[in-house]
Amino acid sequence: MELETEPFDLDTSTPTVVIHREDAEALGVHAMERVELSDDTGTTVGVVKVTTDLIEPGTIGMTRPLMHLEGSVDVRLSPTPQSTRYVRRKLEDIELDHTEIRSIVQDIYHDRLTDIELTAYVCGLQANGLSLEETTSLTECMADVGSRITWDDAVIADKHCIGGVPGNRTTPIVVAIVAAAGVKIPKTSSRAITSPAGTADTMEVFCNVELGQSEIEAVVRKVNGCIAWGGAVDLSPVDDRIIEVETPLSLDPEGQVIASVLSKKRSAGSTHVVVDIPYGESAKVASLAEARRLSRGFKRVGEHLDVRVECAITRGDGPIGRGIGPALEARDVLAVLEGDGPSDLRSKSVELASILLERCGVDADAEALLESGRALETFRDIIEAQGGDRGVTREDIEIGSLTETIVAERDGVVTNADNGVLAELGRRAGAPKDKAAGVVLHVATGEAVDLGDPLLTIHAESAAKRDDAAALEARADVFRIRRPEEMVIDRV
Amino acid sequence: MELETEPFDLDTSTPTVVIHREDAEALGVHAMERVELSDDTGTTVGVVKVTTDLIEPGTIGMTRPLMHLEGSVDVRLSPTPQSTRYVRRKLEDIELDHTEIRSIVQDIYHDRLTDIELTAYVCGLQANGLSLEETTSLTECMADVGSRITWDDAVIADKHCIGGVPGNRTTPIVVAIVAAAGVKIPKTSSRAITSPAGTADTMEVFCNVELGQSEIEAVVRKVNGCIAWGGAVDLSPVDDRIIEVETPLSLDPEGQVIASVLSKKRSAGSTHVVVDIPYGESAKVASLAEARRLSRGFKRVGEHLDVRVECAITRGDGPIGRGIGPALEARDVLAVLEGDGPSDLRSKSVELASILLERCGVDADAEALLESGRALETFRDIIEAQGGDRGVTREDIEIGSLTETIVAERDGVVTNADNGVLAELGRRAGAPKDKAAGVVLHVATGEAVDLGDPLLTIHAESAAKRDDAAALEARADVFRIRRPEEMVIDRV
Repeated sequence: MELETEPFDLDTSTPTVVIHREDAEALGVHAMERVELSDDTGTTVGVVKVTTDLIEPGTIGMTRPLMHLEGSVDVRLSPTPQSTRYVRRKLEDIELDHTEIRSIVQDIYHDRLTDIELTAYVCGLQANGLSLEETTSLTECMADVGSRITWDDAVIADKHCIGGVPGNRTTPIVVAIVAAAGVKIPKTSSRAITSPAGTADTMEVFCNVELGQSEIEAVVRKVNGCIAWGGAVDLSPVDDRIIEVETPLSLDPEGQVIASVLSKKRSAGSTHVVVDIPYGESAKVASLAEARRLSRGFKRVGEHLDVRVECAITRGDGPIGRGIGPALEARDVLAVLEGDGPSDLRSKSVELASILLERCGVDADAEALLESGRALETFRDIIEAQGGDRGVTREDIEIGSLTETIVAERDGVVTNADNGVLAELGRRAGAPKDKAAGVVLHVATGEAVDLGDPLLTIHAESAAKRDDAAALEARADVFRIRRPEEMVIDRV
Repeated sequence: MELETEPFDLDTSTPTVVIHREDAEALGVHAMERVELSDDTGTTVGVVKVTTDLIEPGTIGMTRPLMHLEGSVDVRLSPTPQSTRYVRRKLEDIELDHTEIRSIVQDIYHDRLTDIELTAYVCGLQANGLSLEETTSLTECMADVGSRITWDDAVIADKHCIGGVPGNRTTPIVVAIVAAAGVKIPKTSSRAITSPAGTADTMEVFCNVELGQSEIEAVVRKVNGCIAWGGAVDLSPVDDRIIEVETPLSLDPEGQVIASVLSKKRSAGSTHVVVDIPYGESAKVASLAEARRLSRGFKRVGEHLDVRVECAITRGDGPIGRGIGPALEARDVLAVLEGDGPSDLRSKSVELASILLERCGVDADAEALLESGRALETFRDIIEAQGGDRGVTREDIEIGSLTETIVAERDGVVTNADNGVLAELGRRAGAPKDKAAGVVLHVATGEAVDLGDPLLTIHAESAAKRDDAAALEARADVFRIRRPEEMVIDRV
């Protein structure tokens, strides 16, 4: 059937077409099925939406991924891609071979899977897991699409954190120490999706983070390290699409996590990687056993792909550092590099940098690099190379002036901090969009508090957001405060 | 945020709103997340799509399920429904309790789940299955929503077929026999989704099938039976929504099948049910073991719900009857009722009717009711009660005059018929939309053929569709023809 194209601007990464019910019936096509669209230049596939009045019969609406098609196109019913069969197979707990996994990755890369097919893929992994062989194949196939950076150096360092711990902004410090030791570390980081700040959001307080591939290469050649937003380079296009369905479902299947991280490292040309796996009741990884399993998976898949991986299983039963939110975390980072700052953030960063340098076979003292101020100098070099002000001080970094302090409602010892509630507080205060917004903690787990002691202060740019955060019902549950003699923690 | 509504006609059963990127950013909401929409009349929830030019900033597009909202609405970010947590739990293979299952069913019923959340639900069932208790809960909760028919009679019969076998149109014959025996049988059937004909499509050749609940009740009170399209009554609204995501994924998890069938029977007020479970290489149920497991599930869940269920495990390794497609199947049905017609369709229908009558505790001879012509008379009563012509003859039923016959490419014995290829042939020929289109079979499994013998004839209403069917590459694989001495079936 010949239909006239017209642009139809709907935000979707799936190439979607909108057709009138009459034409859909004539084509025998239902919503969510596919049509082939052919013109002189070739044939492409679109997923169907049906309307009775946004589009006239005889015309076909082209969403953003298909807007390059103009004039009239020949439209016909299209079969389901082969890879959906493998997606179903995974749901039935059948192990997939390399060819089948490549077919799935290719179809995701070319946006041939609908949201529900992609969801079925993620659910299959969540329910049935991936074997070591499957994870290795997935990592290879994911690294094979998108762009790739190559370096002349034998050693390229990298780090990654599984996430889930507010304030845990070790990356800028680790990158500064490792780069100061003379090892190249081209770090790409994400922006926050559900948290109050990602490393890219925090780093953006200091300088530009939207570097293209050639800019990353130039910065790293000059100052050994960079901290760039991964979204500006195309290192893992498949990962971005998968995250679109994982996020609303809060799913993060283990094999997919390993493949996503290691495929990005491989595409970035990294040879030695340290992975931070925080575990704790309210962290992404809940138990030590789970953290160990994930760690083994990372190391084994790394071996198969010739990427040397070291995992650091770390405490994730509460935040790291004192600030939560881009500006507040940026202050903590600068403070640590200046020889000051929260001791937990400092010691964790030094330990991660030490592990990474050791893995790289470099004889350097992470602690000394920090204490001597060499890491701070390197960090200022990176800021400058990424277009920021190398002379920035902690006081230059503005933080939200509209505040509200939450105090202890009883006395006792802080036994636990809830990462989820803290993240929600930071989000409500306006972070990461409002860079100056967030939360400052006044206590840490293990510390004793008295009734009325300040626990944390909300910082916001607007009174409405400050009040919205302060009104969070769960705010009282941020810290679990108990007396040592209490044996029964909760009565149900 | 206050936004002005405007209608936005997109075909979706999820209540979707379309907002401008600027407003989405101000709200902190992403595509596929939810917003609460409030006006004087109350608060409802919408799932977000984002655009930059189909909608002006300050306005909000309302798709069909939300078009009743007019004027301005207050829009704010909405939390994820509680039931998505239970969906995730099922993916982690944790057994759900009655409350959790009710929460999922209620959220599906009220269209609170997005396509990807609903997909995750179906995938969780596919991957991890449902226990007997879970299936019973699901059936009860599904029957509790939508409408319900109540009868004064102690015995209300019903039948269901799992499907997947072309031509297998036993329902009109079974209903006619059972109704002729004086037992009420209010049968609702589906239209074809992926097959060339559903019972409703075939029955529509004779009479109207779009009966509302009160019409079903009136017809059955008058002539003991009806054969109506289930879509015109609201017996299982949740099922319809689930099918929307199952169909494109070709998923049909066992527990969901049992709950869908039995909840509908319960809502229709049925007390005694026979379930036809055809199994075979290309049927929906592939093995005898699987058919037996499904059968046990049906019976056990039925016991818990006080619906007496009998299952008939039947041969599904090829079509039943000779015609495939609405009109061609209608001819077969009428032929059997007239004491003629394909012997496999006849004997299977008689057997199913016998099992059902016996289960109902009714002392009646199904074979005799058919042979005496009493079932035919009852069928004509039903046709008339549903607004059709009771005097219809086989010759009155028009079949596609544009034909193409496919012949045997070798001699041997027909060992197997491929249901999938036959269905595809029928669909390409134009069925079920073109009622006269379809396929007529000239051979059945077990029969010997010579090179050049006619195997089947394609009937179409248009030459283009006939040619499209005839061009199906797999047409040669409809029948597997082997010589008895051949030991090796296929060389791979």
